[in-house]
Amino acid sequence: MIGNTATLIDGKAIAADLRKDVAARAAELSDKGWSPKLVSLSVGDAAAAELYVRNQQKSAKSAGVEFEARNYPTETSLEQLTGIIQGLNADPRVNGIIIQRPLPDHIPVKTLQKLVHPLKDVEGMHPASIGNIVYNDLALGPCTAVAAVEILKTLPLDMEGLNVTVIGHSEIVGKPIAFLLMGLGATVTVCHHMTRSVAMHSRAADAVFVAVGVPGLVTGEMLKPGCAVIDIGINRVDDKTVGDADFESCSQVAGWITPVPGGVGPVTVATLMSNAVLATEMQMNHYRDAYARSEFD
Amino acid sequence: MIGNTATLIDGKAIAADLRKDVAARAAELSDKGWSPKLVSLSVGDAAAAELYVRNQQKSAKSAGVEFEARNYPTETSLEQLTGIIQGLNADPRVNGIIIQRPLPDHIPVKTLQKLVHPLKDVEGMHPASIGNIVYNDLALGPCTAVAAVEILKTLPLDMEGLNVTVIGHSEIVGKPIAFLLMGLGATVTVCHHMTRSVAMHSRAADAVFVAVGVPGLVTGEMLKPGCAVIDIGINRVDDKTVGDADFESCSQVAGWITPVPGGVGPVTVATLMSNAVLATEMQMNHYRDAYARSEFD
Repeated sequence: MIGNTATLIDGKAIAADLRKDVAARAAELSDKGWSPKLVSLSVGDAAAAELYVRNQQKSAKSAGVEFEARNYPTETSLEQLTGIIQGLNADPRVNGIIIQRPLPDHIPVKTLQKLVHPLKDVEGMHPASIGNIVYNDLALGPCTAVAAVEILKTLPLDMEGLNVTVIGHSEIVGKPIAFLLMGLGATVTVCHHMTRSVAMHSRAADAVFVAVGVPGLVTGEMLKPGCAVIDIGINRVDDKTVGDADFESCSQVAGWITPVPGGVGPVTVATLMSNAVLATEMQMNHYRDAYARSEFD
Repeated sequence: MIGNTATLIDGKAIAADLRKDVAARAAELSDKGWSPKLVSLSVGDAAAAELYVRNQQKSAKSAGVEFEARNYPTETSLEQLTGIIQGLNADPRVNGIIIQRPLPDHIPVKTLQKLVHPLKDVEGMHPASIGNIVYNDLALGPCTAVAAVEILKTLPLDMEGLNVTVIGHSEIVGKPIAFLLMGLGATVTVCHHMTRSVAMHSRAADAVFVAVGVPGLVTGEMLKPGCAVIDIGINRVDDKTVGDADFESCSQVAGWITPVPGGVGPVTVATLMSNAVLATEMQMNHYRDAYARSEFD
């Protein structure tokens, strides 16, 4: 070993490029009278989600997307929130709805996410959004999963036939990453806490995605030299933020690696804005098609 | 090699067991006034889908599910079919809608499948049905995929950590098999026509699913001794029906193998009936919940 070999993937630069592209599309939409607008809903203690909301607000501003942050009191009932979301679904001036976590215990997050109209589901959490990804349809995907795959696409690797191992099989990160990659022609293996030997699969992979929330889970010995490591973990260790990959050893074996922080995180927020613009485009086309058919649904 | 070693998996017996279970649930539903009923729609040349329809009709009869086969003339428009499906969606006496293929060229099959209400989607083709499977929710899955996984579950194998290779990544077979297996704790690799070396992945697998429509694609040398082979292919070769696995060589290496015909096929038809009963149960609960909330939606 002659020290670090991996090229650091600059998530901030990728995010900035993405926001530039989003801003151009947002301007085009505005010219047509369809200025993209997001509404963020948080319930209860505003401080818990504040950092996320502030980041999203900043990203929205630089991407030319209007952003309205609403905070409702802790005692808001599920019925009231249902009414609020239905109102936002019906409001043509609102193009995307974000449901900030954490929510108070009496509000089941999945129930709220299913209430968001699939055309306004900028977080890509609705079962129909997930199903559309499986069908390779143009669709709003879960932001973190889409961001992680977009990062891989910036590398000089041929996606067709690429051997990829995804570690972690959550519904909103690991699994959607797997379908997105399958859609691009990669050969994908999904590992998780029940996998007998993660190393057996990761060592055969040209790219490794890890999203499990265990610091240092992936080490250099588990990698094929020259591979890409996309680290989606965000863990607090001794007041430092670290990923799921042991950066020290992995960067000596991998060809590319995302830092934590500064890797997948910034691209995820930019992807939310890209979803906002995509949702607005889909809504515009939906209304046009409905008008052409002379029926509004 | 000392000749055949693989145990033949008896799809007809598994299907018969499944139908017996379905018949019991159907009888229970009937007692509650919710007798399960399927409506099959075919358009144009009835002969093309006739064999499927007849098989389904027979299976429905022995599973205690009512089955109505409708055939519409070739010149039926998309708008007319839309109206027909919306009518069936709204009819509380109809619990499941089957759209037989092939359809005439002017009828896009995906458009029709998306019109079926997710609660009546017994074929498991709606994006929301697929998404619900990804979310591990109780859901109506695509029949072939569900049947293939049910067959694996009859074998004395521990699903948790099982290494499975799925060959073929179609939206309605390969991909749903992958999520269903992930939901059971298996470590899943999905291969397809762009995969560099299918053998590398299949040789590491405790179970191999193949669904690509290429006779003899999987041979004995590609298997780990003692593995399970679930063959979903249905191909006509020299007036014989064969699968995607080369039965001769595979059965000398595998521990279990499904025959074609007589493997996945019969279980698929029985799964359609099991979906009919599940759909009826879901609809009954949906109406009950709506009644409890004093709102009908």
